[in-house]
Amino acid sequence: MKLDHNTTATSEGEMCKTIEVALVDHRDLSPPSPTVLPSPIVGDDLTFTPPLNFAMVDNGIFRSGFPDSANFSFLQTLGLRSIICLCPEPYPEANTDFLMANGIRLFQLGIEGYKHRTGVVVGCLRKSQKWCLSSIFNEYQRFAAAKARVSDQSERES
Amino acid sequence: MKLDHNTTATSEGEMCKTIEVALVDHRDLSPPSPTVLPSPIVGDDLTFTPPLNFAMVDNGIFRSGFPDSANFSFLQTLGLRSIICLCPEPYPEANTDFLMANGIRLFQLGIEGYKHRTGVVVGCLRKSQKWCLSSIFNEYQRFAAAKARVSDQSERES
Repeated sequence: MKLDHNTTATSEGEMCKTIEVALVDHRDLSPPSPTVLPSPIVGDDLTFTPPLNFAMVDNGIFRSGFPDSANFSFLQTLGLRSIICLCPEPYPEANTDFLMANGIRLFQLGIEGYKHRTGVVVGCLRKSQKWCLSSIFNEYQRFAAAKARVSDQSERES
Repeated sequence: MKLDHNTTATSEGEMCKTIEVALVDHRDLSPPSPTVLPSPIVGDDLTFTPPLNFAMVDNGIFRSGFPDSANFSFLQTLGLRSIICLCPEPYPEANTDFLMANGIRLFQLGIEGYKHRTGVVVGCLRKSQKWCLSSIFNEYQRFAAAKARVSDQSERES
């Protein structure tokens, strides 16, 4: 596991699009600055696209798969202050630009060799919250199975 | 669909243990009264058992399968103000007692003939939040599949 506070990314390098990563913390509930507000809603056609497997973990803490630019307008609605990225690959430049423009800090904890790292981290949080093991496994399995379904679907479509 | 504000339940009548139901609202974030606080933690053995398929939907809104007495100490930690029950069966007496003791209002909206009523209600909420359809279906499917897995498991164990 490495701790990397450097948010500079290059456009080269392997992207980690398929890796479930994000624990997002906005415990500081002060409203986001005007520059991070989403564009005004025009008409009824505007929709938000949360990242894959997005869910609220607890007050001010979210989880999701790795976001891309299609998810940025949704992420802006959350008033995020920090993102914990669990994949070891270089952080994509477009994402870095988005974080910088919205005053979001990146903490990259690159964990190698695990398939469901976000699920493991959330499981540790649940353990600290004194959840019983069967409930922790139930939640873990719900997201692991969802990820497997999406992966199977992508393979069938390719 | 029926709207029933009467929280009195009998010990007869068919229980709705297997039906996923709860949307729980505690938008009033004032702390719960002293009578609803969980018992003090003694030692490290205390664990909480969230109801099956428990998850946070949004700030102050939760979803879960139908809770039983094993879940009551966990529910107490949430500071709930209201529960929306989507099953039409009579509300169990033990649950009614728990709600009354903790100052939680019950709104029973008995929806007949649907398997994943909580998922449908949450889907409507997501639509109002302008989520795109694929994200709404992704979330719906995550919980529907989890429920099917638990149901399959119960059948295998019986």
